[in-house]
Amino acid sequence: MDNKKPITVVKIGGNIIDDATELKQFLADFSKIEGNKVLVHGGGKSATKMAKSIGLIPQMIDGRRITDAAMLEVVVMIYAGQINKDIVAQLQAINTNAMGFSGADGNLIQSQKRNHPTIDYGFVGDVKKINTPLLETLISSGIVPVFCAITHDKNGQLLNTNADTIASEVAIALSEVFEVTLSYCFEKPGVLFDAEDDSSVIKKMNQELYAKLKAEKAIHSGMIPKLDNCFNSLSKGVQVIKIGHHKMLKDANAVCTRIEL
Amino acid sequence: MDNKKPITVVKIGGNIIDDATELKQFLADFSKIEGNKVLVHGGGKSATKMAKSIGLIPQMIDGRRITDAAMLEVVVMIYAGQINKDIVAQLQAINTNAMGFSGADGNLIQSQKRNHPTIDYGFVGDVKKINTPLLETLISSGIVPVFCAITHDKNGQLLNTNADTIASEVAIALSEVFEVTLSYCFEKPGVLFDAEDDSSVIKKMNQELYAKLKAEKAIHSGMIPKLDNCFNSLSKGVQVIKIGHHKMLKDANAVCTRIEL
Repeated sequence: MDNKKPITVVKIGGNIIDDATELKQFLADFSKIEGNKVLVHGGGKSATKMAKSIGLIPQMIDGRRITDAAMLEVVVMIYAGQINKDIVAQLQAINTNAMGFSGADGNLIQSQKRNHPTIDYGFVGDVKKINTPLLETLISSGIVPVFCAITHDKNGQLLNTNADTIASEVAIALSEVFEVTLSYCFEKPGVLFDAEDDSSVIKKMNQELYAKLKAEKAIHSGMIPKLDNCFNSLSKGVQVIKIGHHKMLKDANAVCTRIEL
Repeated sequence: MDNKKPITVVKIGGNIIDDATELKQFLADFSKIEGNKVLVHGGGKSATKMAKSIGLIPQMIDGRRITDAAMLEVVVMIYAGQINKDIVAQLQAINTNAMGFSGADGNLIQSQKRNHPTIDYGFVGDVKKINTPLLETLISSGIVPVFCAITHDKNGQLLNTNADTIASEVAIALSEVFEVTLSYCFEKPGVLFDAEDDSSVIKKMNQELYAKLKAEKAIHSGMIPKLDNCFNSLSKGVQVIKIGHHKMLKDANAVCTRIEL
């Protein structure tokens, strides 16, 4: 039980993906993480750009995209096609045996269409089940899984799914067999006390502090689901969770926010 | 050596992909093939449609697309994103453990950018190497690989690649470890003596007949690279090759063209 092998699950968001130089630097850092690893990537602005260029009007509620059938086609194309394959090809070029997946591939991530009492999110899925045995087989064969934020319902329907949640659920599932470090990488050095001041990183965030900051409205809306995911993951077996700039991947002493129960 | 397990490699073209009802029927037939199997799919019209809708003008020479950087983005999106993930999700719904791949994923198909003396094909790749050990590991784990017609050069560049050639090269590579049947499925019942007459199927095509029909210009341009691929595959170890309508997958007595050396 105590001899689980370590694995690192890394999630990158849109700001890294939208900046080719930053993405390249991130992938170089990611490729140097020793041992087993998994990458989960969000979408960035290209889905919105593509949607606009073909005449669709994107809709968002609380930072989450409303996904109608036409928008689903766009996010599948961009996330599972363009972004995922570009990342995989770049990682292959730096000797990282990346393999790109949606949740439909190998039924790795099954979700269910969100059924919300008041908001129709459209083709949005909430993660139901990770195919841990197959994922473990792939990882044990030396594969570095690269997940995009598309899942399926096992009835033929692809579903748009929050990438933070995918990272969190994959990390929880892998914690059955690995000792998991989950790193959320974004453009900031961590969760900030003052959003305008990059030096105000909260080095340790626990539930008590989180409750206090939420009550004071010092934490903005996009960070709330991310932190909820973090506390959920920790309580379900993920060992270590960090939020910060991707330089924390190669420098264990880099400033970042560590999440603790 | 003589106890190789059977495997079926099936290639479908654009006409099946463009027709949702036909595709669904094909996938049902494909799912019923017993034992190990691999699917390779072409592109269909949606890449051309998408290219037009964002203002690109597609160019073709001898039935092959000229792929500039903008068109490469489109084919990656459509082939590896939209079409591949839709097929995988549909197969998962009918209990076929499909996993979708470009050649970049797991470095399964490495190609090199075509270097033609007179025509600049752009980002088009010719297959160089199949990662047979990894492909065999996946197949032995119960995975049904679904390949789109995108490969990579292992230096970070994705490349558009002919789907017939991918099917042929995958079949050749797998023939080292499996007894391979390669089936090219399209809208016709086989290679026809008379393109206007569906009852004129050439039931057996050998190299002698092929040379004769080519000399008489009875075989049109799109069929020539397909048949070249077929004879190449047979000479390199593929056991059986058939060209015809996908009903041949479930009915061994269905009319089709069998290729023989």
